[in-house]
Amino acid sequence: MMKLNKIFIPAAALVALPQMGMAQEAAAAGEAALHTKYILTSLLFLMGGFLVFWMAAGFAMLEAGLVRSKNVTMQLTKNMGLFGFAAIMYWLLGFNLMYPGDGWTITGVLGAFSPTSLEPVGLADTETALDYASVGSDFFFQLMFCATTASIVSGTMAERVKLWPFLLFVVVLTGVIYPIEASWQWGGGWLSEMGFSDFAGSTLVHAAGGFAALAGAIVLGPRIGKYNKDGKVVPIPGSNLALATLGTFILWLGWFGFNGGSQLAMGTIGDIADISRIFANTNMAAAAGAVAALILTQVMFGKVDLTMTLNGALAGLVSITAEPLAPSLFQALIIGGIGGVIVVFAVPMLDRMKIDDVVGAIPVHLIAGFWGTFIVAWTNADASFVTQIIGFAAIGGFVFVVSYVLFLIIKSTVGLRVGEEEEINGLDMAELGMEAYPEFSKG
Amino acid sequence: MMKLNKIFIPAAALVALPQMGMAQEAAAAGEAALHTKYILTSLLFLMGGFLVFWMAAGFAMLEAGLVRSKNVTMQLTKNMGLFGFAAIMYWLLGFNLMYPGDGWTITGVLGAFSPTSLEPVGLADTETALDYASVGSDFFFQLMFCATTASIVSGTMAERVKLWPFLLFVVVLTGVIYPIEASWQWGGGWLSEMGFSDFAGSTLVHAAGGFAALAGAIVLGPRIGKYNKDGKVVPIPGSNLALATLGTFILWLGWFGFNGGSQLAMGTIGDIADISRIFANTNMAAAAGAVAALILTQVMFGKVDLTMTLNGALAGLVSITAEPLAPSLFQALIIGGIGGVIVVFAVPMLDRMKIDDVVGAIPVHLIAGFWGTFIVAWTNADASFVTQIIGFAAIGGFVFVVSYVLFLIIKSTVGLRVGEEEEINGLDMAELGMEAYPEFSKG
Amino acid sequence: MMKLNKIFIPAAALVALPQMGMAQEAAAAGEAALHTKYILTSLLFLMGGFLVFWMAAGFAMLEAGLVRSKNVTMQLTKNMGLFGFAAIMYWLLGFNLMYPGDGWTITGVLGAFSPTSLEPVGLADTETALDYASVGSDFFFQLMFCATTASIVSGTMAERVKLWPFLLFVVVLTGVIYPIEASWQWGGGWLSEMGFSDFAGSTLVHAAGGFAALAGAIVLGPRIGKYNKDGKVVPIPGSNLALATLGTFILWLGWFGFNGGSQLAMGTIGDIADISRIFANTNMAAAAGAVAALILTQVMFGKVDLTMTLNGALAGLVSITAEPLAPSLFQALIIGGIGGVIVVFAVPMLDRMKIDDVVGAIPVHLIAGFWGTFIVAWTNADASFVTQIIGFAAIGGFVFVVSYVLFLIIKSTVGLRVGEEEEINGLDMAELGMEAYPEFSKG
Repeated sequence: MMKLNKIFIPAAALVALPQMGMAQEAAAAGEAALHTKYILTSLLFLMGGFLVFWMAAGFAMLEAGLVRSKNVTMQLTKNMGLFGFAAIMYWLLGFNLMYPGDGWTITGVLGAFSPTSLEPVGLADTETALDYASVGSDFFFQLMFCATTASIVSGTMAERVKLWPFLLFVVVLTGVIYPIEASWQWGGGWLSEMGFSDFAGSTLVHAAGGFAALAGAIVLGPRIGKYNKDGKVVPIPGSNLALATLGTFILWLGWFGFNGGSQLAMGTIGDIADISRIFANTNMAAAAGAVAALILTQVMFGKVDLTMTLNGALAGLVSITAEPLAPSLFQALIIGGIGGVIVVFAVPMLDRMKIDDVVGAIPVHLIAGFWGTFIVAWTNADASFVTQIIGFAAIGGFVFVVSYVLFLIIKSTVGLRVGEEEEINGLDMAELGMEAYPEFSKG
Repeated sequence: MMKLNKIFIPAAALVALPQMGMAQEAAAAGEAALHTKYILTSLLFLMGGFLVFWMAAGFAMLEAGLVRSKNVTMQLTKNMGLFGFAAIMYWLLGFNLMYPGDGWTITGVLGAFSPTSLEPVGLADTETALDYASVGSDFFFQLMFCATTASIVSGTMAERVKLWPFLLFVVVLTGVIYPIEASWQWGGGWLSEMGFSDFAGSTLVHAAGGFAALAGAIVLGPRIGKYNKDGKVVPIPGSNLALATLGTFILWLGWFGFNGGSQLAMGTIGDIADISRIFANTNMAAAAGAVAALILTQVMFGKVDLTMTLNGALAGLVSITAEPLAPSLFQALIIGGIGGVIVVFAVPMLDRMKIDDVVGAIPVHLIAGFWGTFIVAWTNADASFVTQIIGFAAIGGFVFVVSYVLFLIIKSTVGLRVGEEEEINGLDMAELGMEAYPEFSKG
Repeated sequence: MMKLNKIFIPAAALVALPQMGMAQEAAAAGEAALHTKYILTSLLFLMGGFLVFWMAAGFAMLEAGLVRSKNVTMQLTKNMGLFGFAAIMYWLLGFNLMYPGDGWTITGVLGAFSPTSLEPVGLADTETALDYASVGSDFFFQLMFCATTASIVSGTMAERVKLWPFLLFVVVLTGVIYPIEASWQWGGGWLSEMGFSDFAGSTLVHAAGGFAALAGAIVLGPRIGKYNKDGKVVPIPGSNLALATLGTFILWLGWFGFNGGSQLAMGTIGDIADISRIFANTNMAAAAGAVAALILTQVMFGKVDLTMTLNGALAGLVSITAEPLAPSLFQALIIGGIGGVIVVFAVPMLDRMKIDDVVGAIPVHLIAGFWGTFIVAWTNADASFVTQIIGFAAIGGFVFVVSYVLFLIIKSTVGLRVGEEEEINGLDMAELGMEAYPEFSKG
């Protein structure tokens, strides 16, 4: 930050323009325009990346607000820990596994195993192709998607999963499972060859996280007391709805980066106008999801349900994520609104199946993720409903089976679930010895 | 996000520069510069827009922190709901009503009624004028201002207004009232013809929200127990000052987008230097408002009042919003500081009038909004004090009268206020059946 | 925001390109490219600035979460107040003192005393050098670093320091102490002449804040009950770990602006690629710090410690701040990871010295700040270990001695610490008469 001593060589070179001949001037100006594109797309990734990073805080707050106070410290620890491990694993394996370029281990199916290297300091235009963005910005942006996938899992499995076995799963999910399935589409693998379409990850990120969460919920089993002996569902209210609402707003904000950044280019007026469409559609779908859940819970239950409304907004966001660009604002309203409706029906449906999903991540990310993926074919002429279903099933099947097996192995070795007494007393005191709100007496 | 397959046609075209003649090269470079302006201004709107979106979370946290814990779930629900409805109504009616272009229904007074359409996907430079920004980015940015207006109202009317009647008011406010009054100035209507000056909305957004809140507070009446039988004011402390402080910081952050984005252009060095001035002045005014309230409450009451300090910062922000560009940093300090002073005097004044404003939104947004609008003529030679007063009175009169009548109609039909028992027990259990902090016993 | 009436003169000039001769065309295009660089670097400062502003909220939440509930209102008040005073003092004295240009009072040691002036509204390219960025954006960005330094101090001294004496110290710190020491390096002073290297402020901001905090903690003495008569440390748990975690995520997010913006240029592909490296390395160091503390507390104490993990992430961030550009991702992992390890050892070490640092700011900012500064010489060939130590010692010595003397003067005049009874009852009721959570009974 020593501004007085900073030297801007390329700027100086441009100042020298009047001394050049006209041809060189024009060429230099054309090159400058090309550089500007490269800068703008890299900037898109950095901005998109920090917005998606912020979603990690959103998941942490949403989940901390929806668990009971006796498990809040643990939920916060899991969220901080999973992001840390995801960042390391995506560097160690994930990025190159997901984007193998020409270096597939099995073409279109399995990438290559190596850590990520960045470009040299002070990159010159002779050292890189200028038609995309800096590797660092791309890595930074993509890393955040990987971490999001893991964040989805932690909410479903809350209040009963052990810390380290959960983090072990996260290591494999973010280092191997997510990068492999994502490579099938975004790495140019077999699904993209087949014509599958998933703009920003309704399937690749959200449903994938949802399938891993589903596998975890099945292997773990429900929380003690969630389903009583008559088979009735016992509601377990979240301890802090202000935090849960904050988390939802954070996620909504981060989603502009999630979907907008997935345009992957900001150097032309077509690109910026597309990013603008994406921002507007993303916002509309979230609003429609929230409003749909607001109205539907009033109609069905006689009173508005805030947590359903929050999940409605999130389901609207997941729904538009597979295709935030092609829809009109009205189509985005329909797509997001149906996402909100889905949540209101899917949450009790899961409970009837005795799958205990603490924060509703499976309805929001998996089921609305399916809806969003399927409905791409409505607004995007290049997609087909059949291919969308095949792609969703392939990703879902792969992630579910691998996750299920992995959870079974963990369960039968180091163990996956805390003891009954620990669960009843709360994971915070039993596992961590630290309460989140030690001074507030419980009602 | 399939980066391998992405094709950047315009980049490719620029790479082809060396094959062109010099004249074409120069023209292409000039065109690229024009495109860059369009991209940068659209980017300003997208960044400004997501920052102002974040203010919706700020209002939610501020209000959740300043109501009693028995009304927190309701306050969160209102904030999530109002944003959802605002987003839909601004698409359905608001944007075109506010910016009619040449299509006024009554010239300069009433725009046109139609939903918003975005530009086509993959916009080409032949399909648009390049002297502004993408429609999507503009819509996204302006939508957030509309939602802000509604957020202001929810704080004042907290702890006693019914959910659906409130949301019904929001629908009309965001779909019709706000867009019409804003069109008078920002849509090129009669107030802008007259020479009124309101850069980012001290009057159009903040005072307008404040006048709607005032109408609501009068029609609703004060909370039970706020003013006792001797006419004394009974303080009702907020339940969570950490949340209220978080909300204030969020609003402060969002305001950089609110005021900075209102420059409406980022394509020239003059524009970026102006945006920089705006950021610096906005921050100075907020700081001065906070410090003024901090010092003044110490001097007047013998101890610092945190909620006054928070509202002082917000009043500083509202005060600078009508003209964040022209003032020097010292003038911004004076303008914002007086905003902070206003709050400290206006809050007890409202209480003496028995107008019960739960969060202090009327002092912050209406009264400091007047101050900010009036004082524009000090620093901006194009403004006159008389015109500023006329413009403020016109907007204020319109919004207040229409809101007042609307609230009366709602009150006499579906009802506006919860029953006495519901109010005493808290809206969360009575209306929603869901507590925000169910595990924490009340002191 | 009157978009219809906005006129873009430079755009219009570019539209006129076809009428110019080729030479003028090329020159105009070259000039446009130069303008674009100026715009992009200014934009970097504005984005970086609002992200670092957000860190003020992060410190407020972190500290509010780590103090006991009886001191939360006070901690929030201090954080809001310190930012307000920092913003005013940095305008009044700080910025010009820190960046004297050619106007040193004592060359390389002491700058000049004058308030900051911004560029005129509607800056033209003839009024400014185009090789850097707008003064407003630069001021806005640098101001946030100054405020950060003060934020660090408030955490350490929490729960016992009086409000106004603390704010008096902040006035001197932000108006004089920080700007002077920072001028030695970033203002082009004697340390930069000597070859000291501190890219974004491990020493200049973080260790400086840490040294001021250390002086304060020594002069203040520990909280009542922190060390019992047997010399044992009594743990005093924070009241709200959800807020503390939120604060950490906010700081992590803001740090992308802190380190990324410190590239001080975004107009070339080399700059944007460097900023991208910085973002990726900053994230890696934070992740590594969190994971290191997570693992180490498990190994050492048999259970994971969330507050150590949060501080581990922050220590990772501080560690990479002196050189976020040169390291590879793997080196960033090592640097940040060791930062996390340092925290786990340094927190109990300070306690053994009976230095009561409420939030762990000294281990995080001072000790990890030393580590980060020292290790620059590992990855940056222009730095030497010896010079790094000298620079650190010079800054640390200066800040510590001046702060210590200032605290002693304050203590012996207006008093620095609240009375015993006030401390036991909590500062909120005793000093402010306002509880942060008035409705929640204490356990």
